[in-house]
Amino acid sequence: MKLVTFERGGPRLGIVVGQEVVDLASLGSRELPDTMIELIAAAPRFLPRLEELAASREGERLPLGSVRLLAPIPRPRKNVFCVGRNYAAHAAEGARAQGREVVVPEFPEFFTKPPTAVTGHDAEVRIDPEVTRKFDYEVELAVVIGAGGKNIPRERALDHVFGFTIVNDLTARDLQRRHGQWFKGKGLDGSCPMGPWIVTKDALPNFADLAIALRVNGETRQQSRTSKMVHDIPAIIEHLSRGMTLEPGDVIATGTPEGVGYAMDPPRFLAPGDVIEAEIEGIGILRNRMA
Amino acid sequence: MKLVTFERGGPRLGIVVGQEVVDLASLGSRELPDTMIELIAAAPRFLPRLEELAASREGERLPLGSVRLLAPIPRPRKNVFCVGRNYAAHAAEGARAQGREVVVPEFPEFFTKPPTAVTGHDAEVRIDPEVTRKFDYEVELAVVIGAGGKNIPRERALDHVFGFTIVNDLTARDLQRRHGQWFKGKGLDGSCPMGPWIVTKDALPNFADLAIALRVNGETRQQSRTSKMVHDIPAIIEHLSRGMTLEPGDVIATGTPEGVGYAMDPPRFLAPGDVIEAEIEGIGILRNRMA
Repeated sequence: MKLVTFERGGPRLGIVVGQEVVDLASLGSRELPDTMIELIAAAPRFLPRLEELAASREGERLPLGSVRLLAPIPRPRKNVFCVGRNYAAHAAEGARAQGREVVVPEFPEFFTKPPTAVTGHDAEVRIDPEVTRKFDYEVELAVVIGAGGKNIPRERALDHVFGFTIVNDLTARDLQRRHGQWFKGKGLDGSCPMGPWIVTKDALPNFADLAIALRVNGETRQQSRTSKMVHDIPAIIEHLSRGMTLEPGDVIATGTPEGVGYAMDPPRFLAPGDVIEAEIEGIGILRNRMA
Repeated sequence: MKLVTFERGGPRLGIVVGQEVVDLASLGSRELPDTMIELIAAAPRFLPRLEELAASREGERLPLGSVRLLAPIPRPRKNVFCVGRNYAAHAAEGARAQGREVVVPEFPEFFTKPPTAVTGHDAEVRIDPEVTRKFDYEVELAVVIGAGGKNIPRERALDHVFGFTIVNDLTARDLQRRHGQWFKGKGLDGSCPMGPWIVTKDALPNFADLAIALRVNGETRQQSRTSKMVHDIPAIIEHLSRGMTLEPGDVIATGTPEGVGYAMDPPRFLAPGDVIEAEIEGIGILRNRMA
C-alpha cells in the first residue's frame, strides 16, 4: 500500500490506488486517523481497514496528478536520523575528493536533519547563494519506524519497520566542512525532500536489493543498488536503538551511493532551475526543482 | 522570572516565587497556556500577566521542595541543538586526551540530542553498562528561543531569546568516538537533563559572564565563566539560523568548559550512584543521580 499526505485545505491522509488518491477524510469516519504519525502509531488497528478501502470503491478519489503531495510525514516529531558513508563507493569518492585515505566506517555514522528541513515531492527548494555555493544531492532509501523500541536486535529489527520512502539528503558541502560536525551543512530549510509516499513494508519485500538512482535535469548521476549498503537496515536499527528509544514515525535515511556532485572532477553543484529526480525501485520518483 | 514544568497528575506550568511554585492551572483561566512551548510562542501576550501573578497572592502555591520538576520543555519539538568545543580550554583538553593538535573551531560545530534524551531536575539517569562504559558529564548554558526566525544577524540575536536554562550534555565517549559523528554518543535516553527551570531573559541580563560549574559527589570538576565561550550566544544564533529557521521553544546548548572526565589523567567516568550537580550563576543547580 502507498500512503500519502496531501494538501486539501490542510494536510490530508490518502491511499494511492493506481493513478488515484483515496481521500481518507472523505469517508467521514471518526475512527480513522488524521495524521500519518497517528496512523503509524496504531498501524495494526488501521492497516486492515485501509486495505479494505483500497480494494473497495468507497471514499472520494482524486486524480493523483491533480493533488499537491506533502512529505508523507510533513512534520516529524524529532530530527530525521541519517547514516553517513554507508555505501563503500561513496565513502571512497568522498575520500578521494578530500585527498584523504579511504575509510569505510566500521560502525554506522549517525547525524540528523531538523523537521524544518522536511519538504515534499514537487516542492521547490529555495537556497540562498549567500548561505551556500556548494549545494549537493544524495538519494537515500528511508526507513519509517512503526512500533517503537530500544535495544532492538537486528534479528527483530524488521518488526519495528512500518514502511519505506525516499529522502534526498540535500547538503551544503561548504557548510558541512566549515562547521566540523555535519549538522549545519545538512540542516538548511528545504534540504530534506521526502516522499512521494510511504510504501508499507509488506509491499516492498525486497527492500534490501532495490535499484536506486538520481538524475539532475535527466542526466543520471547516481545509480546503485540498496544491496550495496555497508550497514544494512537491520544493523542500522540495532546500532541506532542501542540505549536510545525509537518511536513510531521516526525516519532513518540510510545513506547515499556514489555519484554525488562534490566528488566529481570538476565538482558539479546544484544550480537554480535544476530538476532533481531521486528514484528507488518499488517506491517511485521524488522530484524537486531548485528555485 | 523562573518558569517551571512540574508533575501534578500530568505536566503543569508554574512560576517559582521564592521557595514556592504558583500552579498556573489552579487559576482556572482558559487564557493561560498549558505548555511551556505555547507560553513561549505567545510570550509577549502572557509574560505581563505572569509577572502580575508572581507579584500577587493569586493561585495555589506549592512548596518548591514538594513538587517533582520536569524538564522545563519536557518534549522539545525537534532535537536540542548543541555546540561542540566552544570553550578554548575544553578544546585543548580534548585534543591532549586524544593525542591531537589543539584546534579551536573557527566556526561553531553543531550537533543534536533527540527529544527522547531530555529529562528533568532530580531525575535518575539509567545507563546500561552494555551500551557504554565511558559516560561523561558536560555542564552547559542553554538558550531557549522565543521569537522564531531565519538569517538572524548577531546584532538582533537577543530579540529572539526567550530565556536560559541549564543542560547537562551527558555523553558516551566510547560511542562518540566509535560512530564518527557525535550524535550516537550524545543521544542516549536520559542523556539530556535540562532545568531546573527557565529564567527569562530580563532576569538574567549578565548571561554573557556567569560562573558555570559542575560537581560530582560534591567534588568540583568544571569551573569557568560563560564569558570564555569561543563563539558567544549572538554569534551562535547567527550561524545556526543561517538558512535554517529557528522556532519558539528551540533549545541551544552552548558548549561546555574544561574539566570533563574523559580528559583527566587517568580518565574518570560516571558510575552508578554518582550525584551530578550542574550549576550556573543566576539560574540555579540542575542535579541528577546515576541509577
